[in-house]
Amino acid sequence: INAICQLQRPEFSHTSICNRCHECCGGLRVLYWPQLPNKPDMLNVHLVPHTHDDVGWLKTVDQYYYGDRNDIQHAGVQYILDSVVDQLIKNPDRRFIYVETAFFYRWWKQQSSATQQTVKQLVDEGRLEFVNGGWCMSDEATTHYSAVIDQMTIGLRFLNETFGPCGRPRVAWHIDPFGHAREHASMFAQMGYDGLFFGRLDYQDRAHRMREKEQELLWRASDSLTPPMADLFTGILPNGYNPPEGFCWDQFCDDPPIRDDPDLEDYNVDDVVKRFLAIAKNQATVYKTNHIIMTMGSDFQYENANLWYKNLDKLIHYVNALQAKGSKVNVLYSTPSCYLQELHRANLTWALKTDDFFPYADDAHDFWTGYFTSRPALKRYERISNGNLQVICNQLEVLGGPVSRKGPFGEGDSQTMKKAMAVAQHHDAVSGTEKQHVANDYARKLAEGWQHCQVVVSNSLAGLSSSSAERIYCDNLNVSVCPLTETRSYCSIINNTDPMHLVHVNCTCMCFLNIIHMTKYRKLNICVYVLQFLQVTFDPDTGLLSSLSNLETKQTIKLTQNFYWYNASDGKNMDSSQPSGAYIFRPNSSTPFGISRTAKTETVQTSVVQEVRQWFAPWVSQVVRLYTDSRTLELEWTVGPVPIDDHLGKEVITRLDTSIKTSEIFYTDSNGREVLQRRKDFRPTWQLKQSEPIAGNYYPINSRAFIKDDEDQLTVVTDRSQGGASIQNGSLEIMLHRRLLYDDFRGVGEPLNEISSIFPEGLVVRGRLLLSLDRPPTAADTHRPLAQQVVLQPLLTFTDGELNSNTRLEFSGLQAALPPAVHLLTLTQWDKDKVLLRLEHQFQSWESKRNSKPVTVNLQKLFSTLDVLGASELNLSANQWKDEMSRFDWTPQTDEKPLLKTFEDHSDWEVTLRPMEIRTFLLRVRLR
Amino acid sequence: INAICQLQRPEFSHTSICNRCHECCGGLRVLYWPQLPNKPDMLNVHLVPHTHDDVGWLKTVDQYYYGDRNDIQHAGVQYILDSVVDQLIKNPDRRFIYVETAFFYRWWKQQSSATQQTVKQLVDEGRLEFVNGGWCMSDEATTHYSAVIDQMTIGLRFLNETFGPCGRPRVAWHIDPFGHAREHASMFAQMGYDGLFFGRLDYQDRAHRMREKEQELLWRASDSLTPPMADLFTGILPNGYNPPEGFCWDQFCDDPPIRDDPDLEDYNVDDVVKRFLAIAKNQATVYKTNHIIMTMGSDFQYENANLWYKNLDKLIHYVNALQAKGSKVNVLYSTPSCYLQELHRANLTWALKTDDFFPYADDAHDFWTGYFTSRPALKRYERISNGNLQVICNQLEVLGGPVSRKGPFGEGDSQTMKKAMAVAQHHDAVSGTEKQHVANDYARKLAEGWQHCQVVVSNSLAGLSSSSAERIYCDNLNVSVCPLTETRSYCSIINNTDPMHLVHVNCTCMCFLNIIHMTKYRKLNICVYVLQFLQVTFDPDTGLLSSLSNLETKQTIKLTQNFYWYNASDGKNMDSSQPSGAYIFRPNSSTPFGISRTAKTETVQTSVVQEVRQWFAPWVSQVVRLYTDSRTLELEWTVGPVPIDDHLGKEVITRLDTSIKTSEIFYTDSNGREVLQRRKDFRPTWQLKQSEPIAGNYYPINSRAFIKDDEDQLTVVTDRSQGGASIQNGSLEIMLHRRLLYDDFRGVGEPLNEISSIFPEGLVVRGRLLLSLDRPPTAADTHRPLAQQVVLQPLLTFTDGELNSNTRLEFSGLQAALPPAVHLLTLTQWDKDKVLLRLEHQFQSWESKRNSKPVTVNLQKLFSTLDVLGASELNLSANQWKDEMSRFDWTPQTDEKPLLKTFEDHSDWEVTLRPMEIRTFLLRVRLR
Repeated sequence: INAICQLQRPEFSHTSICNRCHECCGGLRVLYWPQLPNKPDMLNVHLVPHTHDDVGWLKTVDQYYYGDRNDIQHAGVQYILDSVVDQLIKNPDRRFIYVETAFFYRWWKQQSSATQQTVKQLVDEGRLEFVNGGWCMSDEATTHYSAVIDQMTIGLRFLNETFGPCGRPRVAWHIDPFGHAREHASMFAQMGYDGLFFGRLDYQDRAHRMREKEQELLWRASDSLTPPMADLFTGILPNGYNPPEGFCWDQFCDDPPIRDDPDLEDYNVDDVVKRFLAIAKNQATVYKTNHIIMTMGSDFQYENANLWYKNLDKLIHYVNALQAKGSKVNVLYSTPSCYLQELHRANLTWALKTDDFFPYADDAHDFWTGYFTSRPALKRYERISNGNLQVICNQLEVLGGPVSRKGPFGEGDSQTMKKAMAVAQHHDAVSGTEKQHVANDYARKLAEGWQHCQVVVSNSLAGLSSSSAERIYCDNLNVSVCPLTETRSYCSIINNTDPMHLVHVNCTCMCFLNIIHMTKYRKLNICVYVLQFLQVTFDPDTGLLSSLSNLETKQTIKLTQNFYWYNASDGKNMDSSQPSGAYIFRPNSSTPFGISRTAKTETVQTSVVQEVRQWFAPWVSQVVRLYTDSRTLELEWTVGPVPIDDHLGKEVITRLDTSIKTSEIFYTDSNGREVLQRRKDFRPTWQLKQSEPIAGNYYPINSRAFIKDDEDQLTVVTDRSQGGASIQNGSLEIMLHRRLLYDDFRGVGEPLNEISSIFPEGLVVRGRLLLSLDRPPTAADTHRPLAQQVVLQPLLTFTDGELNSNTRLEFSGLQAALPPAVHLLTLTQWDKDKVLLRLEHQFQSWESKRNSKPVTVNLQKLFSTLDVLGASELNLSANQWKDEMSRFDWTPQTDEKPLLKTFEDHSDWEVTLRPMEIRTFLLRVRLR
Repeated sequence: INAICQLQRPEFSHTSICNRCHECCGGLRVLYWPQLPNKPDMLNVHLVPHTHDDVGWLKTVDQYYYGDRNDIQHAGVQYILDSVVDQLIKNPDRRFIYVETAFFYRWWKQQSSATQQTVKQLVDEGRLEFVNGGWCMSDEATTHYSAVIDQMTIGLRFLNETFGPCGRPRVAWHIDPFGHAREHASMFAQMGYDGLFFGRLDYQDRAHRMREKEQELLWRASDSLTPPMADLFTGILPNGYNPPEGFCWDQFCDDPPIRDDPDLEDYNVDDVVKRFLAIAKNQATVYKTNHIIMTMGSDFQYENANLWYKNLDKLIHYVNALQAKGSKVNVLYSTPSCYLQELHRANLTWALKTDDFFPYADDAHDFWTGYFTSRPALKRYERISNGNLQVICNQLEVLGGPVSRKGPFGEGDSQTMKKAMAVAQHHDAVSGTEKQHVANDYARKLAEGWQHCQVVVSNSLAGLSSSSAERIYCDNLNVSVCPLTETRSYCSIINNTDPMHLVHVNCTCMCFLNIIHMTKYRKLNICVYVLQFLQVTFDPDTGLLSSLSNLETKQTIKLTQNFYWYNASDGKNMDSSQPSGAYIFRPNSSTPFGISRTAKTETVQTSVVQEVRQWFAPWVSQVVRLYTDSRTLELEWTVGPVPIDDHLGKEVITRLDTSIKTSEIFYTDSNGREVLQRRKDFRPTWQLKQSEPIAGNYYPINSRAFIKDDEDQLTVVTDRSQGGASIQNGSLEIMLHRRLLYDDFRGVGEPLNEISSIFPEGLVVRGRLLLSLDRPPTAADTHRPLAQQVVLQPLLTFTDGELNSNTRLEFSGLQAALPPAVHLLTLTQWDKDKVLLRLEHQFQSWESKRNSKPVTVNLQKLFSTLDVLGASELNLSANQWKDEMSRFDWTPQTDEKPLLKTFEDHSDWEVTLRPMEIRTFLLRVRLR
C-alpha cells in the first residue's frame, strides 16, 4: 500500500490505473505502452511537446507568470498552462510535460474546481506529465545541495498532494543549466528518478559522444554510495531543448506551417514530410536504439499551444500515412518517461561515466565559467538565507511548537522563506545570469521570507527562553551599526553548527564584531590565549603572506597570496567575437594583471585574535585573521568598486601560490558535497583540445577546493559559490568579483555591471576564505565540519535592557552532540504532528580514516524536547516511501557488477549512515 | 416567411429565436437586450472584441490564413478563429465579431462537423456576430461599385447559406479604409445595413466632430435616391479600431495584464480600474448617449484569444464590482449591432452629412492621397479583370447553359475569378498599398481566375456559335504579338458595352491594333471617313494640344496638355518627417517640374483614325487619337521607367489647362457611380486649415472627373482609378504613375518602387484618358455610356483557319437594346435554375434632361434565349428579399422630412428604375 498516497489523497487507491507508461501507484507498473502507437520494426520518433519556463531571468518570476512586462520579453506562463490544457482536451493523443512547480502552483490555485478536475484527469491519463517537478530547474554550478533538496521537496510535495502518484515525476529534466554537477545526478537518483535528460554539454564532448553513440549513458554519480544508489541513466537531447530546424511552430517561430489545403497557395505537405524524414533518419545515426526523441518546444513556448498541436497533428498524420507506402518511420506524441521506457526495454549496455559535465563550452572560446562567480553579493545573500532557513527558521519552528507560527509576536511562517529560497535556486537566479532588476527581486523575496521567519524565531525563542522581551534582528549587522548594540543589551546566539544550540550572552563588548565572530567569542570564554593550531608569516618587504604552519602536525608550506584581475575580452579580437559576460568568462590574456605587488599593512593583536590588515589598492583590501583557538586562517577580502575608468572589464581573482607539488591537479566540491578531482587541460572522457587556457580550466567551487601532495593539503573553504582553477603547479586561484562592460550574447542582454543606490560607483563585495593546512588523510576531519559552519552561520538577536531572572540562558534541542560524521541536514515541520528529518553522513568513503565509516544514530534518543512516536523512511525528496522506490535497472558497459544494496539497521530506531549517505525520515513527534 | 432562409437552410424556421439584439429571421425583431447587462442609469461601456484581418497586405491572403511567413509579420488567421471559438465557449458572456468572409470561408471548410455545429450555435446565440461580412473589407477610394457589390454578395451569400438569418450582418464595419466614399455608404444602405462604423477620418474633421458631439451622424449617401433609401447611420470609433491606451491585452501588446492575485507581486487591480474609469468618462464627453463603444482588438489580434478574454473578464468584474460602492459605470461585452441598437433606442436627432470623407489626413502633412494612383498597372489589371468577369465570364456562363461549365473544352468556372476579384477589392489590394510580392499574388490570382473563365467562355461560345474550333486568348495582346493573329484567323469580339453582343470577323488586318480598337474596327465596316464629332488643334511650336472643339455643339475650348512630376518628399524637411509613399502623397513643392516644354510629334492619318504621336522624354510619350466616328478624344499615355538616377522620387501627372472658368471647383465620381463636387481648399462640413496645398486637394477618380462652367464641360474618363485635382482655375490634373524611394511609415515597409523581371529598369505604364467636350446639360449622355464602355471593354478570341459554314457569326443575348439610362449591371448564374440579375439606372437625377428620369423594363422581354419563369426582388447584396428588408429609422437634425418610398411597378414583369437606382432580382429561368 502506498501510504503517502493514501495519506495525501485518500480517495486515490493504488489500484487506480494511471494511463501512462511508467510506474505509478504503489509500485504497480502500468504498461499502457501497448496502446501507444509505437512500432518495434520502425524508427519511432518521440515528439515531446514542452515549454521551458525560467523561474525568473529577463523578467521576475511573477512577471513571467502573469505575462507582465512583455516589452522586455513576451512570456506569460498563466496563458501557457491555460492553452495547453485546452489543447490536450481536444485530442487524446496529444501529450505535454510540465517542469516548474513554482509556476504550476501559482496557476493551479487560480483554477476553478472543474478545471482542476480536468487537469487531474489529464495527469491520471498520462496526457499531462510532470517531469523534474521541483519548484524550479535549479542551477548546478552555484547551488548548495541542501537548498536543492529543499526546492525539489517543495515542488514534489505539491505534486504529490495534488495529484497523487500519477503526478510523481520519473524523469529529471535539466535541459537548460549550463553544465551538470555530479551531485545533482546523485540527488536525482536518490529521489527515485529513472533518468535525467539535458541539453547543454561541451561541444567537443557532444561530438565525441555522437561519434561513439554515447549520448545516452549511465552516470555513476557518487564514489561513496553503493551502486546503483547514485546511478542515473542520462540522455543528451539532440537539439538542446529546441525542435529540429524548420519544425518550430510556436507563435515565436517563423517556420512554415503545414499547408495542406490543396485549394490554397503553397501546399507544402510533401516538402515538410521529406524534410522531417531526413532529419529523423539523420538523428537515428547518432543514437543507439530505434527510438529517438525530439523536443518540440522552447523558452516560454506554448502560450498559444494550438499553433504547435495543430501542425504536429498534421505532421504525425502525413508522416505516418507514408507507412502504407513502405515508410519505416513512425512518429508519435510522447513524453520523456515513455521514451525512457523504450530505451530501458532495449536492454542494451550503456557507457559508464563517473566524472561530471563541467565546464560547459558551446564553442572554442565560449566557456560558461563566468557565472560561477557572477553576482557575488547575491550568491552570498542566498547562502546566508539558506543557513537562516535551514536551521534557525525550520528548527525553531519545530522546537517551539505551534506557538512559533502564532505567538506573542504575531503570525509567522517558514513557507515564504522556503519558496523564496526555492526560487533562488533557479539556474538564472543564484547563478547570477539574470537581469539586474530580477536579481533585485530575488534578493527582495529572500528579505521578505526572512521577515516572516523572524516572527517564527521570536515566538519560538519566547517559549524556549521563557522571555517575551522584544527581539531585534540586525539584518545588516556586518555593514552597519545596529542601534541596540550600542546600548546595554543581551543577544541570543543561535548556533547553526551545533544544531539548535542557543545561548544568551552580554553583547555590549562585541558590537564591533560581525556575525560569524560570535561563535568564536563564546568559545573564548572557555579557553586559552596563545596560538595553538596555526601560525602564519608575512614577507616584511611586500606585506604579503609568506608561509603557513600547522603547529599540531608540525607542517609548514610556503604560501604567497595576492590579488589580480583578468582583462575581460570585449569580443573585438580575431579568434572570436565572444566577450566576457554574465555567463561567459573569457580573459583576453592568460596572464592576469597584478593589483599591487605589495600591500600596506597594519597589525592588530588582542587576546582573542591576531589581525594583519592589508591594503592593495583603494578598491582591494584584506584582513588576515587568526583566532587563538582556531584551526583555520581567515582571509576576509574586500573588493570593489572595481574601477572601469580605463574601459576595461575586470575579473578579479585571489591566487594562493604554495610549495605544494600539485602535478596540475586540484579538487573541488560538487554542490557542497562530494569532492571531484580536476586536472589541468584534461577531461576524463575525451581528448580535450584546449582553446581557452584560463577559462577552460575553471570549475565551480561551492564550499571548498583543495590542493595537495603526499605531505600537505591546503584546503580553502569559501563562504559562497565561486569559480576557481589551478593554472600553475602549487597554485590555487579563486575568482571573487566581476565587473564587465559587454553583454555576452546569451540572452540576458545586459553587461554584468552591478551598481545600486548603495553602491553608485559599483558594487563592493566582502567575503571570507578559510584556510586549513593538514596532512591529507585527516584534512577532511577539519574541512567537513568547517564548511558546514560557514554554510550554516549563527544568528544573533538582541534584546534591550537586562534579562529577567526567569530567562533560560542556554538551550540545546539535542540530547547529545551528534557524532562528527553525522550532520543534521533537515529538521522541519511537515504537518501538524509530523516533522521531516534528514540525517547525512558528511564524509566521502576515502577521505577520513576516522570518520569515513558507517555510523549509527538512535532516532528516539536524538532530541531533548521531542518524543518521537513513529518514523518512516522516505526517498531523498520525501515524495515516496523508501521501500516503495523502484527504479529502472541499467547495465553499464563495464563488467563491474553493481553491489546489492544492503540495509543493516539495528532496529526500528537505530539508523546507520554510510559515507555520503543521506537518509530522510518522516517522524511523528510530540513536544515534551 | 423568409423564403431565402428556407431556401438555403430549410431546417431553420423563422420562429427560431436568435439570441441577439437586432432583427433576425423573417422580420422578427428579437429583443434579447433585456438579458444583456446594460443599465439605463449608468454609463454603459460596450467592449467589442474584434480582429482586423487584412485580406493580403504584408503577406498574401493565403499566407495570412495559414500563418506562413511569420518572419514578415506574425499573423495566422486559422489560429485566430480556432482560438476565438474556444474562448467563446468558455464564457457565455463573451462576444466576438468577425468581418472578412474570405478568411472565414477558408477556415470553415476545414472544420469538423462538430465544430461547425458549435459555431452555428455561437452565431445563433449572438456570441459570434458577423459584421460587414463581405469577402473582404473593400477599399473605398479605388474600387468600382460593380466589383464591390460582387464581393459583398459572395461573402454575404456564404454567410446566408451557412448560418441563415442569424449570420446576416446588420452593421457595416469599415474600420481601416483610408477615407470613406459616399457611394459605399449608399451601397451599404441598399444592402440593408443598419449602420456603418469606421475608424479613419481627417484629424481636423474628428476634432470638430468631437467638439460638436457629431462623431455619430446620419449619412445621406445619394443625391438621387429617395431618402431613406441611401441613408446610413454612421459612427466614428473612438480609437481608430484599437483599444484605449493601456488596455491592449493581445499577444502583440505589452500593456500590463490584470494581476489580481494578492499573493503575487504587483497586484494592480486598483490601478487598472482607475485608469479605465478615467478613459471611459473622458470618452463619454464627446459622444451623445450614455452608451459608448470600445474596440478591443486590432490587426490580426486574438490569435491567442485567451489573453484578451481572461483580462477582459477581470476588467468587467472589477469595474462593475465598484457599482456596489456607487460607481455609475457599467462595462459589458457587446457587439456593434448591440451598441447600435442602444443608439437607436436613444431616439435622438443626428447630424446629417451629404458629402464624403475624402481626402483622409492623419496629420497636417500626412494626406493619404497617394494610394489613389499607387500601382497603376495593378489598378488597370483589376479593372480589365472586372470587365472580363462582369460580362464575358458571368454572362456567357448564363447564356451557354450547363455546357459552359463542363463542355468540349473541359471544366471551367467563374468562381475562381469571382473570388480573385473579391480579394482584389481589399483595401490593401487594388489600393496599391501592399508589399510588392503581395501585389504580384493578387495579379496572379486574377490571371488564374481568367484561366478558369476561358474554359467557360470557350465552352459557351462553342454552343452559341455552333463551332467548337479551339479558341486562343491573347491575354497580352496589347504588349506582345499573339502568334495566331499573324496567320489567317478569325476572332470573336465579345462586346461588353452592348451586352452579350458577339460578332465574328476576319481578324488578319488588325493585328497591330490593341483590344479596345476592335470595337471601332467593327463600326468602321459600317461608316463614314471624315471627322464628324470632334476636332483638335496642336501648337506647331510646342507640339502640344492647343484646343478642342465639339463640331456638333459648335463649342471650342483652349486646351493645353502636358506632363509634369512632383518631387516626392523624402521626409527630411523641417515641417514634418513624412515622406511620400504607397499611402501618402506629399510633394516637397507645390510646383511640379515639367518633363518637357515641347513634344516631338509625328502624325499618322488613316481613314479610320488620326493620330498625333508625342515624345516628351525617353520615359514619357503619348498618342493623341481621334477616331473618325468617335465623340471622344483619346490620350494614350505611356510613362516609365520613371528615372531615379537623381535620387528623387517622382509622382507623375498630366495636366489639362483649359479656358473653362471653374471657380476652383471640379467634380469626381464616387466608386464609378454618382459624381460629387470638389472645391479647392474647402470641406463642406468644417473650416479647413489647408496645410498641403497640392496633396490636400487630391481626390479619388474612379471612372471620370470633369470641370465645367455655364458653357463648357470637359469630362475625362479614366481607364482605372487615379488621383486628381484642380489646383488652378480651368485646370484638371491626374496623377498617372508614382515611383518613390522611401517608405511612408504606415506599415507597408517598402518604398513604392515597382521593378519586375519584365521591367528591370522600373515599371512602364500605359493608359488612356478619354476626353469629351459637351454642353453641361447633355454631358452625361456622353460620359455615362462612355465610362461603361471603358470599364467593360470587349474581349477578342481567335480561331485558327477558316470558319466552317455552320458557324453563327453574330449573336446577342438581348431581345432588344436596353434604354440608354439602363445598364445591365449583373447577370450571373445563381444556382441550377436561377440567375441573379441587377439592373441599374445609370444617371443621376440632375445630370441629363433626356436620361435622368424613371425608365421601365420588362423582365420577361429582356433576353433572347432565356425564358424567365419567375422573379423575386432582393436587396442589393442579394442576401435578403427586398420586401423583408427592415432597417432602423433615424431622424436627422434638419427639419427635412424624408419622402416615403413608393414603388410603382406596372406589373410583375415591368420594373421601373429611378435615377441611380439599382434593382436586384433572382430570376428562375429556362434556356430556350
